[in-house]
Amino acid sequence: MGLIVQKYGGSSLANAEAIGHVAGRIVAAAETGTKVVVVVSAMGNTTDNLFDLAHRVALVPAPRELDLLLSTGEIVSSTLLAMALRSRGRDAIAFSGAQAGIRTNQSHGMARIAFVEPQRIVSELDLGKIVVVAGFQGITDEMDVTTLGRGASDLSAVALAAALKADICEVYTDVEGVYTADPRLVPKARKMDRIGFEEMLEMASYGAKMNPRSIEFGMTYNMKILVASSISNVPGTLIHQGDTMDQTVGEIRNRVRSVLTDKDVAMITLKETKDCPGVAAAIFEPLAAASISIDEIVQSVGAEGVTDLSFTVKRAEADQALEVATEVAREMSGVEVSSLSDVAKISIVGTVMQDAPGYAAQMFRVLADQGINIEMITTSDIRITCIVDDSRVEAAAKALHTVFGLDNLN
Amino acid sequence: MGLIVQKYGGSSLANAEAIGHVAGRIVAAAETGTKVVVVVSAMGNTTDNLFDLAHRVALVPAPRELDLLLSTGEIVSSTLLAMALRSRGRDAIAFSGAQAGIRTNQSHGMARIAFVEPQRIVSELDLGKIVVVAGFQGITDEMDVTTLGRGASDLSAVALAAALKADICEVYTDVEGVYTADPRLVPKARKMDRIGFEEMLEMASYGAKMNPRSIEFGMTYNMKILVASSISNVPGTLIHQGDTMDQTVGEIRNRVRSVLTDKDVAMITLKETKDCPGVAAAIFEPLAAASISIDEIVQSVGAEGVTDLSFTVKRAEADQALEVATEVAREMSGVEVSSLSDVAKISIVGTVMQDAPGYAAQMFRVLADQGINIEMITTSDIRITCIVDDSRVEAAAKALHTVFGLDNLN
Repeated sequence: MGLIVQKYGGSSLANAEAIGHVAGRIVAAAETGTKVVVVVSAMGNTTDNLFDLAHRVALVPAPRELDLLLSTGEIVSSTLLAMALRSRGRDAIAFSGAQAGIRTNQSHGMARIAFVEPQRIVSELDLGKIVVVAGFQGITDEMDVTTLGRGASDLSAVALAAALKADICEVYTDVEGVYTADPRLVPKARKMDRIGFEEMLEMASYGAKMNPRSIEFGMTYNMKILVASSISNVPGTLIHQGDTMDQTVGEIRNRVRSVLTDKDVAMITLKETKDCPGVAAAIFEPLAAASISIDEIVQSVGAEGVTDLSFTVKRAEADQALEVATEVAREMSGVEVSSLSDVAKISIVGTVMQDAPGYAAQMFRVLADQGINIEMITTSDIRITCIVDDSRVEAAAKALHTVFGLDNLN
Repeated sequence: MGLIVQKYGGSSLANAEAIGHVAGRIVAAAETGTKVVVVVSAMGNTTDNLFDLAHRVALVPAPRELDLLLSTGEIVSSTLLAMALRSRGRDAIAFSGAQAGIRTNQSHGMARIAFVEPQRIVSELDLGKIVVVAGFQGITDEMDVTTLGRGASDLSAVALAAALKADICEVYTDVEGVYTADPRLVPKARKMDRIGFEEMLEMASYGAKMNPRSIEFGMTYNMKILVASSISNVPGTLIHQGDTMDQTVGEIRNRVRSVLTDKDVAMITLKETKDCPGVAAAIFEPLAAASISIDEIVQSVGAEGVTDLSFTVKRAEADQALEVATEVAREMSGVEVSSLSDVAKISIVGTVMQDAPGYAAQMFRVLADQGINIEMITTSDIRITCIVDDSRVEAAAKALHTVFGLDNLN
């Protein structure tokens, strides 16, 4: 008898009707005879609303209490879904993260799963019940409730799937899978049938809606993850170890897997900073103290002991970051600070880039042919990212999607 | 060093501003040097909203899941209040019922407190923290969350006060205390400074806003309860064992303590039912099966083996109760069913009634002098209740308040 773990996101559980719809899908899965464990996020915008409420009563809400507060969102959706399943004639039981045996360390707001004690889930499954677990949360040895970070219901699902040795972890969401590019920008973007964990990890960090740690977890425990729509019956995208991937003709022919874009980017540059130890720390420590999240950092090779240092932040934090950077620059003689708030990030991703050269050059050529200036370049083993003017990102994405052969696949 | 338990109701915690106000009051109490444990209800209408949501996903929500769902309301308010206290410079910690050590049996929806394990609360108090506990909830030996019944945050507060051997349990609400009558009907109604547990128990059942089991708990453990306003600084009403009460001049002179009224009453009568075993069961079993709550029941002494049987229900359930009663009567030959939907309940309460005769006669005389017809009479040791036409209940309440010397006390 098989066992699957399904995860449903908040937009799939936004109200009573949506919960009823999801219950219908779960019942259909259970009727194939497989055991089913369901992990849920909080309904709709619940988590954001609770977060806002906390910030209305306290400037800096206590992390322990914030976790206990936010954990209620997933408990609400798990209990409602269990009720909906029972009203459809399937026995079901709802568990908080604590009851599901998800044990974590004490890092409130970003707790790490220490281990999973799935005994009670196993007993209830053996009694024929569908088990519905509140995602996003766990409990410490001291019985303090923790949360695992934003979007971490995915992580709860993959961790439970691994602990229960499930056949697959199915993540249902409001999109039909993972795409080769943002379909709003690139009309020829297509859904991928399969993708490797590593590639998905880069994509997760660049806009696709899976928690990166859940992908790492899937990779570590070799747990297949299917990302699919909670509404349609389109097959979705299977995220897996990728061993069979290179064997398919399509995969070999097409080494760049996707084009990613992000318009929520602002770039700040400190020109002619001293190229000596301690300078980067002097710049980024005050930014960290101001709780500003830095995305990409590039330090150029400079002449005569000086260098240019650029970094990107989210646009909402651009003004504050500029202010902090200007303050820092004031204490360094000769440093000039500038910012660009209308830039965007465009990336190409594919594991095969790590073995084959020339992808970067090809990308830069495509952008040059379009007359698009590159403000900044960063790379990882399987990704190349350029910062460009945001009015040109759509044209860039379309051109790259075509040139790297993504328009006409499958 | 003293220890007090304070309880705040949902209307005192309706939004962020109200929570801030309550936090200010708690800080003021803590600054006198006493240890403070706070028990909270859910914010505003949260519990009703969660209940409605459950009934939108399932006709009959599973009791275990309903409890887990409803328990989130008090967790939300407890965490927000702890955050608000910390933002006012007082260290505070929020606990769910489970974390507070409130252990119950498994009767979901109406669980009984088995015992309280207050060790963690004691440790946190010893560290100088204000402890905020989610009311209304506990946990079973199997780690299943239970709720203690509607309004049972009062019970959580009194039980914790007893377990912690607190000096007093202070229940803060949206009224200034317990009144001699409903001030909306009887302008001369006054707030009582003190009242005995037994009298309060009758009043709790008749409109005043304290959970009756919490009063029983206070009586059993001899824990003084102060009911007072969460807004004003009026002293409130002290509910206590009453040993000193008879010693005050006011108490001796004035044996009737209060006049209670309730307009949410409908009365149904079955005339000429057979006066033989099993008849009452035949009537009330189908009503119970239809989940209709019966309030008062009176069976009159009948002639020639027949008797009249009357009972009262809430008005919202009157139509359904009449339908069930008519159905039952159809199977009993010669029984006639009638209903009165525009009646009200008026009661006088006082412990001294149990020792001194004549109060009932005096009450009936007052009503007769006002030309008010009595539809039904019921009594307890310390209470006499009449059902009258609801258009006359205000006049009846005023007259009784005056005759029993309640207008000019203190």
